[in-house]
Amino acid sequence: MEIANTIQSVRTLTKAARNQGRNIGFVPTMGALHIGHICLIESANQQTDFVVVSIFVNPTQFAPDEDFEKYPRPFENDLKICRENGVDVVFAPTTEELYGDENLTWVNVQKLTEPLCGRFRPGHFQGVITVCAKLFNIVAPDIAFFGQKDAQQAIVIKRMVVDLNMPLEIVICPTVREENGLAVSSRNKYLTAQQKENAALIFKSLQKCRELIDSGLVDTRKIIAQMRKILNQAPSINIEYVSIVDAETLQALDTAAGAVLAAVAVRIGQARLIDNILLDVSKK
Amino acid sequence: MEIANTIQSVRTLTKAARNQGRNIGFVPTMGALHIGHICLIESANQQTDFVVVSIFVNPTQFAPDEDFEKYPRPFENDLKICRENGVDVVFAPTTEELYGDENLTWVNVQKLTEPLCGRFRPGHFQGVITVCAKLFNIVAPDIAFFGQKDAQQAIVIKRMVVDLNMPLEIVICPTVREENGLAVSSRNKYLTAQQKENAALIFKSLQKCRELIDSGLVDTRKIIAQMRKILNQAPSINIEYVSIVDAETLQALDTAAGAVLAAVAVRIGQARLIDNILLDVSKK
Repeated sequence: MEIANTIQSVRTLTKAARNQGRNIGFVPTMGALHIGHICLIESANQQTDFVVVSIFVNPTQFAPDEDFEKYPRPFENDLKICRENGVDVVFAPTTEELYGDENLTWVNVQKLTEPLCGRFRPGHFQGVITVCAKLFNIVAPDIAFFGQKDAQQAIVIKRMVVDLNMPLEIVICPTVREENGLAVSSRNKYLTAQQKENAALIFKSLQKCRELIDSGLVDTRKIIAQMRKILNQAPSINIEYVSIVDAETLQALDTAAGAVLAAVAVRIGQARLIDNILLDVSKK
Repeated sequence: MEIANTIQSVRTLTKAARNQGRNIGFVPTMGALHIGHICLIESANQQTDFVVVSIFVNPTQFAPDEDFEKYPRPFENDLKICRENGVDVVFAPTTEELYGDENLTWVNVQKLTEPLCGRFRPGHFQGVITVCAKLFNIVAPDIAFFGQKDAQQAIVIKRMVVDLNMPLEIVICPTVREENGLAVSSRNKYLTAQQKENAALIFKSLQKCRELIDSGLVDTRKIIAQMRKILNQAPSINIEYVSIVDAETLQALDTAAGAVLAAVAVRIGQARLIDNILLDVSKK
C-alpha cells in the first residue's frame, strides 16, 4: 500500500494504474475509519481494480462552533485498517496541500442543500461539495463510494456529478449499524455508554416510521409525532429534525408516497447524530 | 472534421484520440467565430494534437436584459471556419443536452469576480465558470485556450482550474485587433460604421495609459482621468468602467506598480465592448 501526501504523488499512482487498464475506485473519508468505511472499501474492491482512500478532515465543512478540532484522528490505526482491507493508495494531504494559501472557488448545489442538515449546518454542504469536486479531479476515479447514512450528502454529491458532467459514477452503500441499531459513525466515539444506549432510539424511531407506513398510515404529521415520542423517551436526546421527505427532491411530504426518505438528526451530549431509511411507499 | 451534438459523442471522440496518445486542445466559444478565435485554434493546433472547438451560446452567462436572443449564430459559417483551420471536432450541444431539465450546481470564484465586469454583469461569471467546468469535464482537454480580451474571464477560469485541481492547463492568447486598434469581438457586429470608428477610442485610451505610465506617471486617478477624456471625445460612448487594477488580484490600485491591468468597458449603441492591456510597471 502506498501513502501519498501530495496531489502530484497520488496523481502519479492513479495514472500508472489507469495506464495498466485498471479501474479506479475511490472512498473519500475524514479518517477515524470504522466498519462502515470498511464496507465502502469492500465495495470498491469488488467493483474496481485499484482502490484509493483519502483521509482528510476537511475544515471547510465544519462551522466555527462545530467539532473540527476534536474530530478523532487515529491516523496510524486508519492506515492499518486500509492495509488490512486491500487499499492500494491512501491519500492523506495536509490542508495546505489541498487548499493552498486561499481557496476562492466554491461549488454549490441549490435546493437539495436547503432542507434537513442544510438548515442546521450553514456552509456545511458547500464545504463537502467543494472538497469532493477537488478530490474527484485529483484522483479521477471511475467510481466513488459513499454511505447511505449521510443520505443528503450522497444525493447532493450525485447531483453535482451529474450537473457538472464529471466523468465518474457514485455508488451509495447501505448504512452499517451496531447491534442495537445505532448507525456506525466516527462521532459515536463522543458518546458515553448510557448515551449510546439512548441513541438506539434513533433507529427505533425510523423502524416505527416503517411500521406505520407499512400499516397504511401516510399522514406524515402523525408519523413524525410518533417518531418524536420515541426519541423523547430519552431526555438526553435533543431533536434537530425528524423529517419525511421525497427521496429525490428532499422536499417535505404531507403524505408519504413514492420513494420516501425518513431522516432524523439529534444531539446527544457532545455528539450530533444522523440516520435515515429509504422507503418505497406503494400506492394502496 | 466531426460534429458532435451530444456529450456522449464528443467524449467518444476525445477518448479515442487520447487512447492514440494524442493531447487534446480545447477552444470553448459561443460561435460567431472571428480572427480572434482562429488565433486560439491556431495556438491549439500548435500546442496539441487534437483540437476540439465548442460552439454554444451559453444562456446562463447572460442577464435577462442582455443580448442572449440577438447574439449572432452563423453556425454554417462557423463550421466552415473550423474546417478550414484544422479543427478535429466541433462540439455543438443544445441547451437541453448541456444543462438537462434543471441545473442546480453552480461554481463560483469569490473576490476575482467582484470588480470590473462583475459589478455590471451580476451572475455573468457564475454562468461562465459553471459552463467551463462542465465543458472541461466533458472534453477533458490537456490545454484550454482563452483570449486576453476577456481578461477577467481568463483570470477567473485559471483560478477555478487551480482551486478545483482540474487536470488541465489554461493558455491565454493575445488580443487580436482590427486595423484601427478595436479588439476583435463577435459583438462588433452590433456597431454601425460610425460607431466602429468611435470604438477605436477604447484602444487609444489604453495606449494613452501605457504612454503615461512609460513616462513615469503612476497616480492611477490622473491616468484614468486622461483615459476618460479620450473616451469622452465620442458622445456615443457610455463608459461603464475605466480601471487600473493589480493584474493578479484585480484589486484597484491607487499607484500603478508591478503587474498591472488597465481595463475599459463601454457601451456604444447596441454593443457592450471591453478591452484591456497588461503592463509591467517596474519600480523606478
